Amino acid sequence: MSEYIPTYDDILSAAKTINGEAVRTPLLRNDALDKVTGCKVYIKPENLQRTGSFKFRGAYNAISKLNDKERERGILANSSGNHAQGIGDASRMFGCASTIVMPADAPVMKVERTKSYDAKVIHFDRAKEDRDVVLARVEKETGGVIVHPYNNAMVIAGQGTVGLEIAEDIMALDGELDRVIACTGGGGLTAGVALAINHHFPDAKIYSSEPERFEDYKRSLKSGKLERNATTAGSICDAIIAPTPGSVGFEVNKNLLHSGLVVSDEEALTAIKFAYEELKLVVEPGGAVALAAVLKYGKEWAGETVTIILSGGNVDPDIFVRAIS
Amino acid sequence: MSEYIPTYDDILSAAKTINGEAVRTPLLRNDALDKVTGCKVYIKPENLQRTGSFKFRGAYNAISKLNDKERERGILANSSGNHAQGIGDASRMFGCASTIVMPADAPVMKVERTKSYDAKVIHFDRAKEDRDVVLARVEKETGGVIVHPYNNAMVIAGQGTVGLEIAEDIMALDGELDRVIACTGGGGLTAGVALAINHHFPDAKIYSSEPERFEDYKRSLKSGKLERNATTAGSICDAIIAPTPGSVGFEVNKNLLHSGLVVSDEEALTAIKFAYEELKLVVEPGGAVALAAVLKYGKEWAGETVTIILSGGNVDPDIFVRAIS
Repeated sequence: MSEYIPTYDDILSAAKTINGEAVRTPLLRNDALDKVTGCKVYIKPENLQRTGSFKFRGAYNAISKLNDKERERGILANSSGNHAQGIGDASRMFGCASTIVMPADAPVMKVERTKSYDAKVIHFDRAKEDRDVVLARVEKETGGVIVHPYNNAMVIAGQGTVGLEIAEDIMALDGELDRVIACTGGGGLTAGVALAINHHFPDAKIYSSEPERFEDYKRSLKSGKLERNATTAGSICDAIIAPTPGSVGFEVNKNLLHSGLVVSDEEALTAIKFAYEELKLVVEPGGAVALAAVLKYGKEWAGETVTIILSGGNVDPDIFVRAIS
Repeated sequence: MSEYIPTYDDILSAAKTINGEAVRTPLLRNDALDKVTGCKVYIKPENLQRTGSFKFRGAYNAISKLNDKERERGILANSSGNHAQGIGDASRMFGCASTIVMPADAPVMKVERTKSYDAKVIHFDRAKEDRDVVLARVEKETGGVIVHPYNNAMVIAGQGTVGLEIAEDIMALDGELDRVIACTGGGGLTAGVALAINHHFPDAKIYSSEPERFEDYKRSLKSGKLERNATTAGSICDAIIAPTPGSVGFEVNKNLLHSGLVVSDEEALTAIKFAYEELKLVVEPGGAVALAAVLKYGKEWAGETVTIILSGGNVDPDIFVRAIS
């Protein structure tokens, strides 16, 4: 069956849907970041979004598209924790139940925050079980409706509002934009952002960014087909460790992305420290890879205008302390 | 000699002066903060300002009012570290030298960041020396021009742009504002904000906020005259430990402020943790007292609209780790 691929119009529609519910995050500048990179850098801080990450946008938009009967059955999702909170919060707002399948080693903060939205959390062992199998079992038992964290056109359209807001804000300023870097797990945020940015800035180069050893997106963009990571665990960037690109988003990204950037876990930690010291923002490892990428590659783009997305800020104190100490 | 007391027009003028140089910080909302306080809370995050605190605004505005000959003599100031960075950065931008008298126990981050703006730092022992005496000696030796951290009308006018931006943003939204809480050391930010807010929202109640045992502002507002703290050290809120209210700002505040709020160091640390977990913002102890105050008193103001200022984010890792662990 051929999948529906979201369009720019779906993003416009999502923007109307989430208006007044999601935070319209600002576009920030920071003198120290400009100085160290040599670029004019815009920061889109989605760590300031409801639930602490951009995931609320897609979750809310997708749930809004369900009918009452579907919502009554309850929402199901698997997630390492950010989509979980987005689904939990949005489900609560729509008055429906939610159940999230999360790895047993998900960050404590993410588990607790997910439960705080009255979501039911079911843990599984990442090494022994397949999360899709666990989720299918829950689906069979409960009859709930699965909202996939990224392989869902309406989720991608919701995440695309991040790109739409970036485009609107930059058009209201000087209208210059050379490069955009998204944080990339399954590629839903990246695809939504690519659709919106490409619509308004067709010449801007758009990049995925990933942690080393989990660079499935970079390799997939190169080969033109869905490549898999050799492993499913072992990076501190828990939020963006997907086994392979989502097929829906990849249909967008394979045409619109310039290429994939890769940073090490150490570079992600250094970016968290930079965000603490200079930006005064709390960013989680997976949300810091685009910042790490501009810190790593900015010198090659001196004088250009680069927008980076800080995709989330739900980080356990032990990791944060390790980064800033 | 009678001191010049700044007016709303001075703030309008300062806003033009700093436009394009200072960050126009956004006005943020946070669902979790609304929920826990029962209020509709606007957050003015001046930790996102250049140099990591609001102090850049006043420093830049004051230095802009000097003539070339004065600027050639170099700028002098005493500061626990935030005004230091504001003076250092603004001096560099105007092409003049700066020398800062800082306590020897100032946070390491503040000392290093001040030096990064090419400012010369002179340390003194808080227990044995009077900072004004040290500064007077430096003035005599160098012939530089002192820009006081808060007892200066043009500094206060610069800080007032924080209040002007709050007022403009709220007028562009629903125009409702019941209470405003500033973080208060010498009272310069508080006075500037009070002038701007009172101009646009004459019915809004404006508060100072201070740490326990350093509540000179609260007592001064009560007595109507300048009260002194019994001690000059011993709070983690280093940024807002002034011995007594500045006389210029007090002329404004004694008429425009509702009263003074007080929080403990522990409540400031809890506010830092809340900002880390929910707001995803890095706030320093002295910059967190207004947040601590709304967390403490919000329940009494249920349903009202409250704006708090997060005045700075320059916090050493050891204190931050203590707060979030």
